[in-house]
Amino acid sequence: MNLNREEIAAFEQRYRTTFVNSLAGFRQVVLVGTKSAEGIANLAIFNSLMHIGAHPPLYGILNRPDSVQRDTLQNILETKEYTLNFVRATDFEKAHQTSARYEKDVSEFKEVGFEEEYIDGCAAPFVKDAVVKIAMRLEEIIPIPLNGTQLIVGSIVHVELKDGLVGQDGFVSLSDEETLLCQGLDAYFIASPIGRLPYAKPGKTLQ
Amino acid sequence: MNLNREEIAAFEQRYRTTFVNSLAGFRQVVLVGTKSAEGIANLAIFNSLMHIGAHPPLYGILNRPDSVQRDTLQNILETKEYTLNFVRATDFEKAHQTSARYEKDVSEFKEVGFEEEYIDGCAAPFVKDAVVKIAMRLEEIIPIPLNGTQLIVGSIVHVELKDGLVGQDGFVSLSDEETLLCQGLDAYFIASPIGRLPYAKPGKTLQ
Repeated sequence: MNLNREEIAAFEQRYRTTFVNSLAGFRQVVLVGTKSAEGIANLAIFNSLMHIGAHPPLYGILNRPDSVQRDTLQNILETKEYTLNFVRATDFEKAHQTSARYEKDVSEFKEVGFEEEYIDGCAAPFVKDAVVKIAMRLEEIIPIPLNGTQLIVGSIVHVELKDGLVGQDGFVSLSDEETLLCQGLDAYFIASPIGRLPYAKPGKTLQ
Repeated sequence: MNLNREEIAAFEQRYRTTFVNSLAGFRQVVLVGTKSAEGIANLAIFNSLMHIGAHPPLYGILNRPDSVQRDTLQNILETKEYTLNFVRATDFEKAHQTSARYEKDVSEFKEVGFEEEYIDGCAAPFVKDAVVKIAMRLEEIIPIPLNGTQLIVGSIVHVELKDGLVGQDGFVSLSDEETLLCQGLDAYFIASPIGRLPYAKPGKTLQ
């Protein structure tokens, strides 16, 4: 199957969104917890978590202006705090339901049935049953003028995860807990391990 | 297990890199094909593919200044063209081996054993056996001043993928072909489907 730019542009709008989004492949599901200045908890699913650097520890998420993620961005701008939560695959229906367009004065935690948790003076709510809970501080909003999206760049303030999940070399075995991943806007998966490989050096013959 | 920012900063450097990178979760493996102005083919593994928008179809990849990805960026700046290739999980050792620090005048295709392919007047090389092949045109380099990384934003020019992989609604069934995903810098996975869900609307009760 061959498609050029014009053929993709001519797709029916929903088909095109599904095609281009799912074509980008598999990604981590992250539930972003925030609190509004008025104190209302918000939880929204993002599929755009990006590792930007380890020192300082920086992650990015992409905000689309025309989506339910607007409340998340507004809360982050107001409070500078947010949480990243990875849930188990068994919670995939709840995670997906946070993408519904709830009113701003409604807490998605209550609506979809995740319990809020508060840690360490971070004002933003965590998902209590999440495998990984990360408190983030807003560092910078980087606009992508081409289509009006914004990369929300934050630094890790605090990490809470199950004991025994971190290996001797620092590797976090998320697949042991069957954390949820996704493709596109509605397809959910778990990751099955193939293996880890040593640091690659030139000269190795593989054929 | 609880970790704060200071504890993470105090980790031994390699441990910290592994921890922060693997903590960001699962992501699509993408092999980026480029050609230098001198005509030398280059292939490099990236784990930072980001869907930025569907119309126009925009994807981003993150470039780290201190890595083997430098050749890729230089080639993209010189030619404005690059390819994104998703390979099968059975090719995970070859894909990983493209991360070795080969000299700039060496083609990773030859070194790791992927065959080059050229399509449709795109000057950049594709991986012949890839499940998904995407020709990209550079649109914008967005600097992230916090740590000197750069988001390479490009638009889709051409897509080639196996017949039958695209569903009636536009969804691309990558898991049918067991395309490769990764976590951190050296752990490889395949995705096992859980299910797809309908567009979420407020009012659904899940508990």
